[in-house]
Amino acid sequence: MSNKKYVYFFAANQSEGKAEMKNLLGGKGANLAEMCNIGVPVPPGFTLSTEVCTAYYDNNRNYPAGLKEEVEAAIAKTETVLGKKFGDPNDPLLFSVRSGSRVSMPGMMDTVLNLGINEKITEGLAKISGNPRFAWDSFRRFVQMYGDVVLDLKPVNKEDEDPFEMIIEAKKEEKGVELDTDLSTDDLKELVTEFKAAIKEKTGREFPDDPMEQLWGAIGAVFGSWMNDRAKTYRTLNQIPSEWGTAVNVQSMVYGNMGTDCATGVAFTRDPANGKKIFYGEYLVNAQGEDVVAGIRTPQPVNASTKSDPSHKTLEELMPKPYNDLVDIYKKLENHYKDMQDIEFTIQQGKLWMLQTRNGKRTAEAAVSIAVDMVNEGLIDKKTAINRVKPESLDQLLHPMFDPKASINVIATGLPASPGAATGRIVFHADDAEEWSGKGENVILVRIETSPEDIGGMHVAKGILTSRGGMTSHAAVVARGMGTCCVAGCGALDINYKQKTMTVSGKVFKEGDWISLDGSKGQVIEGKVPTIDPVLSGNFGTLMGWADEVRHLKVRTNADTPHDAEVARNFGAEGIGLCRTEHMFFEGDRIKAVREMILADNEAGRRRALAKLLPYQRDDFYGIFKAMQDLPVTVRTLDPPLHEFLPHDDANQKVMADELGITLEEVKAKVDALHEFNPMLGHRGCRLGISYPEITEMQARAIIEAACDLKKEGVNVLPEIMIPLVGTSPEFRNQKKVVVDTAKKVMEEKGIEVEYLVGTMIEVPRAAITADKIAKDAQFFSFGTNDLTQMTLGFSRDDAGKFLKDYLEHGIFKEDPFQTLDQNGVGLLVEIGVQRGRQTKPDLKIGICGEHGGDPKSVVFCHKVGMNYVSCSPYRVPIARLAAAQAQLNFPG
Amino acid sequence: MSNKKYVYFFAANQSEGKAEMKNLLGGKGANLAEMCNIGVPVPPGFTLSTEVCTAYYDNNRNYPAGLKEEVEAAIAKTETVLGKKFGDPNDPLLFSVRSGSRVSMPGMMDTVLNLGINEKITEGLAKISGNPRFAWDSFRRFVQMYGDVVLDLKPVNKEDEDPFEMIIEAKKEEKGVELDTDLSTDDLKELVTEFKAAIKEKTGREFPDDPMEQLWGAIGAVFGSWMNDRAKTYRTLNQIPSEWGTAVNVQSMVYGNMGTDCATGVAFTRDPANGKKIFYGEYLVNAQGEDVVAGIRTPQPVNASTKSDPSHKTLEELMPKPYNDLVDIYKKLENHYKDMQDIEFTIQQGKLWMLQTRNGKRTAEAAVSIAVDMVNEGLIDKKTAINRVKPESLDQLLHPMFDPKASINVIATGLPASPGAATGRIVFHADDAEEWSGKGENVILVRIETSPEDIGGMHVAKGILTSRGGMTSHAAVVARGMGTCCVAGCGALDINYKQKTMTVSGKVFKEGDWISLDGSKGQVIEGKVPTIDPVLSGNFGTLMGWADEVRHLKVRTNADTPHDAEVARNFGAEGIGLCRTEHMFFEGDRIKAVREMILADNEAGRRRALAKLLPYQRDDFYGIFKAMQDLPVTVRTLDPPLHEFLPHDDANQKVMADELGITLEEVKAKVDALHEFNPMLGHRGCRLGISYPEITEMQARAIIEAACDLKKEGVNVLPEIMIPLVGTSPEFRNQKKVVVDTAKKVMEEKGIEVEYLVGTMIEVPRAAITADKIAKDAQFFSFGTNDLTQMTLGFSRDDAGKFLKDYLEHGIFKEDPFQTLDQNGVGLLVEIGVQRGRQTKPDLKIGICGEHGGDPKSVVFCHKVGMNYVSCSPYRVPIARLAAAQAQLNFPG
Repeated sequence: MSNKKYVYFFAANQSEGKAEMKNLLGGKGANLAEMCNIGVPVPPGFTLSTEVCTAYYDNNRNYPAGLKEEVEAAIAKTETVLGKKFGDPNDPLLFSVRSGSRVSMPGMMDTVLNLGINEKITEGLAKISGNPRFAWDSFRRFVQMYGDVVLDLKPVNKEDEDPFEMIIEAKKEEKGVELDTDLSTDDLKELVTEFKAAIKEKTGREFPDDPMEQLWGAIGAVFGSWMNDRAKTYRTLNQIPSEWGTAVNVQSMVYGNMGTDCATGVAFTRDPANGKKIFYGEYLVNAQGEDVVAGIRTPQPVNASTKSDPSHKTLEELMPKPYNDLVDIYKKLENHYKDMQDIEFTIQQGKLWMLQTRNGKRTAEAAVSIAVDMVNEGLIDKKTAINRVKPESLDQLLHPMFDPKASINVIATGLPASPGAATGRIVFHADDAEEWSGKGENVILVRIETSPEDIGGMHVAKGILTSRGGMTSHAAVVARGMGTCCVAGCGALDINYKQKTMTVSGKVFKEGDWISLDGSKGQVIEGKVPTIDPVLSGNFGTLMGWADEVRHLKVRTNADTPHDAEVARNFGAEGIGLCRTEHMFFEGDRIKAVREMILADNEAGRRRALAKLLPYQRDDFYGIFKAMQDLPVTVRTLDPPLHEFLPHDDANQKVMADELGITLEEVKAKVDALHEFNPMLGHRGCRLGISYPEITEMQARAIIEAACDLKKEGVNVLPEIMIPLVGTSPEFRNQKKVVVDTAKKVMEEKGIEVEYLVGTMIEVPRAAITADKIAKDAQFFSFGTNDLTQMTLGFSRDDAGKFLKDYLEHGIFKEDPFQTLDQNGVGLLVEIGVQRGRQTKPDLKIGICGEHGGDPKSVVFCHKVGMNYVSCSPYRVPIARLAAAQAQLNFPG
Repeated sequence: MSNKKYVYFFAANQSEGKAEMKNLLGGKGANLAEMCNIGVPVPPGFTLSTEVCTAYYDNNRNYPAGLKEEVEAAIAKTETVLGKKFGDPNDPLLFSVRSGSRVSMPGMMDTVLNLGINEKITEGLAKISGNPRFAWDSFRRFVQMYGDVVLDLKPVNKEDEDPFEMIIEAKKEEKGVELDTDLSTDDLKELVTEFKAAIKEKTGREFPDDPMEQLWGAIGAVFGSWMNDRAKTYRTLNQIPSEWGTAVNVQSMVYGNMGTDCATGVAFTRDPANGKKIFYGEYLVNAQGEDVVAGIRTPQPVNASTKSDPSHKTLEELMPKPYNDLVDIYKKLENHYKDMQDIEFTIQQGKLWMLQTRNGKRTAEAAVSIAVDMVNEGLIDKKTAINRVKPESLDQLLHPMFDPKASINVIATGLPASPGAATGRIVFHADDAEEWSGKGENVILVRIETSPEDIGGMHVAKGILTSRGGMTSHAAVVARGMGTCCVAGCGALDINYKQKTMTVSGKVFKEGDWISLDGSKGQVIEGKVPTIDPVLSGNFGTLMGWADEVRHLKVRTNADTPHDAEVARNFGAEGIGLCRTEHMFFEGDRIKAVREMILADNEAGRRRALAKLLPYQRDDFYGIFKAMQDLPVTVRTLDPPLHEFLPHDDANQKVMADELGITLEEVKAKVDALHEFNPMLGHRGCRLGISYPEITEMQARAIIEAACDLKKEGVNVLPEIMIPLVGTSPEFRNQKKVVVDTAKKVMEEKGIEVEYLVGTMIEVPRAAITADKIAKDAQFFSFGTNDLTQMTLGFSRDDAGKFLKDYLEHGIFKEDPFQTLDQNGVGLLVEIGVQRGRQTKPDLKIGICGEHGGDPKSVVFCHKVGMNYVSCSPYRVPIARLAAAQAQLNFPG
C-alpha cells in the first residue's frame, strides 16, 4: 500500500494546502486552502490532488489504493467543522464538485453543484431552511447537472435544444408562465421526476439516490472530463501538457439561491478590460454561481462605478454589510497575492462566503496599466512589472483600430467584452468559422451565447458577437484570454441558427455578410470599416521604457517601405533587419522591366532591362534609408525564383506578351522553362546572383547610389547588404565581390565614400554547419529561420498544414515550428552557427530576421544564444522589446 | 627580385628534375627528366614550371621577373649539348613547345612543333639535311600550327573547313595530285607563302620570322590554352583545380619526317584494352608525331602481335634495330615505373628517341588484369594492386553486354577502341549530343573524327563512332578514359555533316535513327540490341578477393525485387540496405488498390484497400527475403507523397475514375487536394504513417508474415524495418510502436518468433543533429544522403540542374554533390549524426543508402566516419567493395 497522500483538507485554520501547492492541488484547490490560511471565509471541503488524476490514467482509469478511505476521512472532518452530515436528511451537508488544474482552463471542465441530495434529503432541506422552493430548486438543479455531466444526457446534435431545457420549456408552457422563477415548488417536483424519467429513457441508467454513489460519480466525471475533446483542444491551443492532470475540489455548499437575502457573484479587483483601479463585479440575487457565468440572466453591477443602467440595483445598495465585507476581502486578497484577483463569492442569508480567488485574466491594456500602477503603489518592483505582461498579448494594443473619421453605421451596441477592432463575414457556427477561416476568410462568429464546444471556432474568428451573457460570460472571458475582439450580451440581435440569419431592428443579416465589431465600445457596425494605426503612450510607454533599460538584445524590424520603416521606428525599432527587395519589383511599371529581364536571352538584354529598374530601386532605398537615418538598414538582394514574377494564367500571359511585343508561346515557353518541382529548393537566392551577377550588381548600385546621395545631403546611412540562401563560402565570396566591386565603382563616380557591410543570411543548414568558413568573409550573419526551419525539418511551409495538425495532436511538436522556433532541433543548428561564426570572428554581429524574431519564446532563445539583435514585423517590435527584457531578467547569462 | 627557380633543364645526366616533381614540372616534364636520369635517349630541352603559369595568371598575364634570363640560359645549355644553335641558319636547332600539366589532359592543350624556323633557316636545314622537301615540309607544318595555335586562324564556324587545309586542298587540285606527300618542295614553298598571306589577311598579324619571338609566342599560347574553354570543360569534368596550372616543355626537335628511315609512333607496354602482356603500338613512316594522334593517316602496328591486315608492315620488320632498342626501353621503363607505360617515340634516320612516357590510360578490364598480372610477376604487391584500379572504372565491366543470342545485323566493323555495349540514336554533332541527352535521349555520337571541342558531347554519349583514326586517336583515348564504348576508324562509313546522314553500303542512316555499338568487338549494329548481365571471373575475381580480405566496411545493395537481390548477391552484396516498397505499389492490379486507398475518406475505407495490397506485399518480401537468406534485408516503409500514385493527365484520370466507379471530378478533386508546392518537403515518409498508421501496419504485417512463413520453411531471415524521413524522436517512436505492436500480433497468430530490428533513415538535417535522442529508440541508422543533401544544401535534385552547372563552373562545388557526397557540408552533418548516435548507443549499426553508397570517394568517407556498411545499386557493389578496401589501406584509422 502506498503512503502517498491524495486528499487535502481545507477549512479555517485547518488547511493542509497552500498557494504554492498549485501543481499538486490545482489553482482552485491551492487558493481555497490559502484563503483559509489568511482568514478569509471559505466553505470547508477537500481537494483530490492532480496525482490522483495521473494515477487514474496511468492505471487504466482506476483510482489508487487508499483514496476511498482518505475521501471518507475528509468528509468526516468537513462534517465535524460544519456540524452537519453528508446524506443526513435532518440537516444535510451538500457538496459542490469542481475541477481545478494547475492553470485555469475556463469552462473547459465540468462541475456539479448541490450533490448529496435525493427526495428525502430535499424534504429535510426544505424543513430546515423553511424554504421548500429553494430545496426543490436545488434538487432540480442537481438532477439536471448530474444528468448532463455524469450520466451524459446531452443534445444529440449541436443544434438540438438541451433535453432538460426542453422539459422546462414544456413545463412553463403547460403552466402558462414566462420565467423559471415563476414555476412553483410542485412544478419543480414534477420537473425532477420528469428529468429522472428522461435520463432513464435515454441513457437506460437509474438516477442514483445514494449521496456517496453520487459523489464518486461526479469525481469520476471530473477526471474523465480531463480527456474530453474540448479539454484536449484547449490544451493543444494553450500548450498545456496532458500529464499535468486536474485536481477535484469537493466543497461544502453555500446557497445563493435561498432567498432574496442571498446572492452570488464574480468580481475583479481591478477592471480587467483597461486595468483601472475600480472594484469591478457582477452578481445575481437569489441565484447559484453558474447562473452568472452561463449568461442566462443578465447580472447587475456590484457597485456604482460600473453601473450603466439606472434600473439596476448594485450589491452595495442592496446588501451593504456583505458588500463591505467583500471590499475588505478583495483588498486583502490583492495585497496578499500582489496581483489583480478574479474572485467568486456567494452570500447566503446575508453572510459572505468566498468560493474562489485567482490571478485575473486581463486584456493587454489592463495588464500594462495594472503592472505600472502596482509599481507606483509600491506593491511590486519594476522587474516584476516587466514580467507581469505577456509580450504576446501586446499584439492586442498594436493592431490597427477603426478609423474614427470613417462614417460608420452602428446597428447595435452590446457589452465591450474584449477590446480591439474586427471586420469579417458572419458565420453562426464554430465549425463554419473554422472551415471558412481555413479558406482564408476573415469571420465574425455570431452566437446567442458561446460554450466550451465553440473554442476552436472562437480561436480562428477575428471577432465574437453574442446576444446574451455579461462581461464575465464564457464568450467574454475566453475572448479576452485570446486577445480576440468581442461584443457580448447584445440583446438587440435576434439570432436564428436554422436559417443562419441575424435580425437587428428588422434588418436581416445572412451568413457571409460583412460586419465589424468595436470591442472597446461594444459596437456592432454594418459592413467593413477602415482601420488606423494605434497610438501608444502613458503606461505602455512607461513599461516599454523599463523594458529598454533592462534588455541587451537590440530589436530591429522587417520593413520594405519608408512607411513601414516609420511605423516600426515609432514602435521603437533600432534599425531594419530585413528589407526585402523583391516586393519593389512588383509595383507599377517595374514588373514590365522585370519580365523583360527574365525574357532576355543574354546578359546584354538583361542589363538593358535592369537599367530601367535601377532608378526605381535607388529611390526605394533613398526613402527607406532616410526614414532610418542613423540606424542600420539590412537590404537583402533578390531572393525569390524568377517564375514568381511571371503570370501563370492565360489572360495575364497574353497581356504580358502584348506588352513585351512577343508571342504568347514565347511567354509560355519561358514559364515552362522556369517551372520547378520544388521551387523552395530551386533557382533562387544567391543562386540567381551567381547565374546573373548583373542583378546583384544593379541592386548594389542602387543601394550605394542612394547612400551616397543621402550622405551628400548630410543624412547618415548605415547600409548592410545581405546575400540570401548562401550555403557555402564560395557562394558568398562570389556575391560579395560583385557588391564590393560595384560599390567601389559607384563611390568613385559619386566622389564620396560611404560605409557599408556585406553579410549573409544563415538559412540553409549547410551555412549553419560551415559558419566558421563563411564568417571569414561575411561581416554579419542574419538567421533566416523561416527557411532554416523548412530545410532543417524538411517541412514545406506551404504544404505542412496537411500533417502539422496531426503532429500537434500526437504531441510530436508542442508548437507550430513556424511560429515558435524549434529550439531542440532548428535551434541546435542556430547555436552551432552562432558558435562557429564567432569562433572565426569573436565580435561577429548576429541577428535573426525570420518570423520567429517577433515570437517571445524565440526572442528569449535568441538572447540565450547570444545574438545581437532580433528583427520582426513593425507591429511586433514592442513585443520583442518586452520579450528581450524578460529574457535578460530571467536569463542574465 | 625573386630567387625562385622557374626553368628546369633536362638532358642525359644533366637533368634538374625527376619523376617525383610532377606538381612542379607537369607529368610530361617530370618524366622527360626522369628518362634522362635512367639513361633513356631523350632530345634535350627544358621545362617552364607550373609556378610560371600560376604567377602568370596571378599577375594579370605577365611573366615573373627573371624568367626571360632563365629561358635564355636553358637554350644556351641545350645548344651546348647538341652543338647547334637556336636560330642558326647553318645548323639550326628547332624546338617543340608542348604543355604538360600535373595530370594528363589529352588533346586539351595546344602544341607547336618545328619552332625556330623561317625561310632562311629552312634553306639551311635543307642544306644540312640534304633533304629540301623535309625542310620545307617542316616549315609548312610550323607555319600551319603556329598560325592556328598562336595566331588563332581557325575555322569561323565549326562546320567550316580548316583555312589551312582549304589552301592545301586548293593546291592539290591546282597541281592535280591526290596526297599531301605528292606535293613538291616548290608546292610547299608556295603553301608557306599562301599560309602567311592568309594569316595576314584574316588576323591582320604579320607572321614572326624571329625564332625568339616565335618561342615566346608559343609559350604564351600554351599558358593561354590553360584557360581556354575546352581545357576548362575538361577540368570541370575531371575535377582538376585550375590553380594547378600547366608547365611548358621546350624540347629540341628530332624528325620522324626526314625520310623513309624515319618514323614516329606511340605504344603501350601492355594492351590498354584488355591488359594482355603484349607490346602494343602504332607508327607512321616519315611522319611527325601529331600525324599519328590526329588520325589523318591510318598507322601501322609496331609488331606482329597486333597486325591484322597482311598488307601492313610492322616496325619490327621495317626497322629491326630501332625496334629492338624500343623493346629494351619499354621494358626498362615498365620495370622502373612498375606500371604499364604509354610512350611516344621518334626514329630519325635510324636513331630512336623517346619523347614521352607516362602511366598508360587503360580500360577497367586492362587495369584489373595488369594489376593482378603484375602481382603474379612480383612487380607489385597486393595492396598496390588494389590501389591501382579506380573503383569507378569497374562500372565498365559491370554493365550489361549485348545478348549473344540476339540476332544482330552488323553493318560495319571498325576498331574496338573502348569496350562495352551501347544503344542509342544517332547524332552528328557534340552540341546535339548534349542537347538530346539533356532531354533524356540515349545518343551515339557519330563523327568522322573527334576533336577536343567535342569533349562535352562525348561525355554524354552512350557510345562514340568514328570513321577515321586508330586505337590511339583522340576518340579512342578519350572514350577509354571515360569508360564510354567506342568504335573508331570505321572506314566503311560515309558521314555527311551537312545532311546529317551516315551511309553504309548504300544504306542511309539519319539523325535520330537507332544503332548499337559493340566496343569490345568494334561492331556497328543496326537498331537496338538487347543486353545481358556480364559474367565476372578470373582476374576480376582475384582482385575482388584481395579487396574483401582487406576491407572492414560491409557492402549491401539497394534492391526492390528478388531478381535485383540475386544480381547483387552475385556481385558480392552482403545484404540489402534499402528495399523500397513503393515500387511494388505500381505493379499490375496493385495500383488500383493503392488508388482506392488514397480515395478513401476514412480509416475503414483505407483498411479495406490495404487488405487487398497485403498479400502482394507479403509475396514481395517473401521472394526478397528468400533471395537474401542469411543476410540482413532493410525494408523501408512507404516514402513518396501519395499524389505520385495518381494519374495527372485527363485520359488516365478517366480510366482511374471508371475503374473505381467514381466521377472524373472526384479524381481531379483528390489530385488537387494532394497537390503540393514543394512535394519534396511535403506529406511523405513517416508523415504518411503518422497520418495513416494503417499503412505502416499493413507493411509491418506483410514483412513479419513473410518472415514467419520463411522461418517455418527453415529459411533464416533478418528483416530490418526502416522508417523514412524521421526528423524527431517522437515520430520514430510513433511508427516503431505501430511496427512492434503489429509484429507481436502477427507472431502470436503465426505461433512463431522472428527476430527483426526497427531503425530509421537519417535524411532530415534535424535527425542528424538530434541523433542522440533518436538513437534511444532506433536499433539502426541508415543515412539517406540523397534527401539529406537536398535539405542540407537546399537543392532540389530535380531542379538543381538549372544552377549546378554554373556552380561547377565557378568552382563553388568541385563535384556534383548528388554524385559525390559534399563532405565539407553534408558530411559534417553525417559525422554529427554518427557521433551523436553512438554517444547514446556505442554499438549502433550505421549505414548509408543514398546514391553516394556506390560512389568511391563517398565510400571512403563512410569508412572514415566509422559506418558499418554502405548500400548501393547492384551494379555498383563491386565498385564499393574495391573502394572500401582502398579506404582501409589508405585510412586504416
